Amino acid sequence: MPKILIKEKEHEIQVPIMLTAVSGKIRIKNRSILNKYGTPVAARRDGFALNNYVEWQIGYDVVKKEVNKLAESSLPKTEFIGANGKTKALYELSEYIWYFYRWNIISKNDLKEIVDYLNSIKDEDLIDNNSELQIDRSHPIAKNINGFNFEYTQVKYPLLIYKFKNYEIITEIKITEKQYAVGTQPMLYLCFPITELKSDVNLIGRTAEVKEIANFEITEDNIRVFLEMLKMFGILSNSHRHDILQIIDTILV
Amino acid sequence: MPKILIKEKEHEIQVPIMLTAVSGKIRIKNRSILNKYGTPVAARRDGFALNNYVEWQIGYDVVKKEVNKLAESSLPKTEFIGANGKTKALYELSEYIWYFYRWNIISKNDLKEIVDYLNSIKDEDLIDNNSELQIDRSHPIAKNINGFNFEYTQVKYPLLIYKFKNYEIITEIKITEKQYAVGTQPMLYLCFPITELKSDVNLIGRTAEVKEIANFEITEDNIRVFLEMLKMFGILSNSHRHDILQIIDTILV
Repeated sequence: MPKILIKEKEHEIQVPIMLTAVSGKIRIKNRSILNKYGTPVAARRDGFALNNYVEWQIGYDVVKKEVNKLAESSLPKTEFIGANGKTKALYELSEYIWYFYRWNIISKNDLKEIVDYLNSIKDEDLIDNNSELQIDRSHPIAKNINGFNFEYTQVKYPLLIYKFKNYEIITEIKITEKQYAVGTQPMLYLCFPITELKSDVNLIGRTAEVKEIANFEITEDNIRVFLEMLKMFGILSNSHRHDILQIIDTILV
Repeated sequence: MPKILIKEKEHEIQVPIMLTAVSGKIRIKNRSILNKYGTPVAARRDGFALNNYVEWQIGYDVVKKEVNKLAESSLPKTEFIGANGKTKALYELSEYIWYFYRWNIISKNDLKEIVDYLNSIKDEDLIDNNSELQIDRSHPIAKNINGFNFEYTQVKYPLLIYKFKNYEIITEIKITEKQYAVGTQPMLYLCFPITELKSDVNLIGRTAEVKEIANFEITEDNIRVFLEMLKMFGILSNSHRHDILQIIDTILV
């Protein structure tokens, strides 16, 4: 991903969004009115439409040993120890909060409130421990399909959607299986309409240029959404909570 | 993947199974008795147990331009045009059927029956078109979690399980979203207990050696299961059906 642009004077961060990436953490998707379910958009072929949105699996840290990724952080010298024992630097979400704290737009009290809140949440109330948010499988029933006698079940994945009041931004928390262990793994996605992106030429109704980039601007007007997201990350699991508390310590230093 | 061993005289094919791969098309998993749901096994660390099984996303073709993968096929000179217009060779499932047809264990009539069956299936009865096998999303309900007002929904994925009579082998058809388009994509997995694997030293109760391999033997006794799987692949979608019909043509030549 290209580097973010920090406008110290304007108190603004420009995040470049690749519009044509078909893999990776940021994707352009299309939301159907019928089922509100997102499918990927081939922006080079089909162009942009009003119902397109950006789905961004936003991160908050980078492992220092991952040199290429570390180079994407504007704060490579910051340091904390993650729940997995690895030395990490601030990145993306935590990076943005760092700047707005330095710019006195986020206060010490804002961050302390998140610390108090996260410390008040019981282990069993963390999202990955929540018994109402487990992956469920329906009892198998017999189903004959084209002569084959199958057993049919449904595997049900919880999805939490959070709408930020007065903003076009939502977060989706998808709960899936852990890849190499027993248990669930909540993943947080930030979604917003592509109309929120700044581009020299209006996106709607045209196809994307090769490797085209548009900007998402983080300003005083929307940084509270990101602060709320930091708090939300902290309730996903014990590891997430550990990381977020360490990150706030690092920002407050 | 290491190459298969074809024992012409014994009419047997040995398929080497990597026991320690954590990614790729073959994985060792653990099935809980409670929910029958598989989770991956760290065979080097935790060792093998009786409830472990092999989950194999078995293929039936290889694109000829993919030279490295083509080298894994024992029949690189076979040729057919896939539904996607690409030139392909027989591989894995189709490879096994090719040999057992040459060995007169699978008859011309066996294959012709599959052709007739597949031609008799209406487009709307193919699995990816089946209206009862769509991905479903429950109506969102309000759910307060740790003070956050979320909307909660469940995303429901159909799973079909087929048990082969008198065998320890099952197939699972998982239905997921297409990655770059609207619609569903059925994926077929072959599963069998690790006790079906042949190894010089019994697997149960010990950990895996570095890059350890065990063998799965395809013989006259179980080849009918693979023939049935070929037929099942043909009803997944129109593209699958096209491919399977082409493959049978190629085998019958």
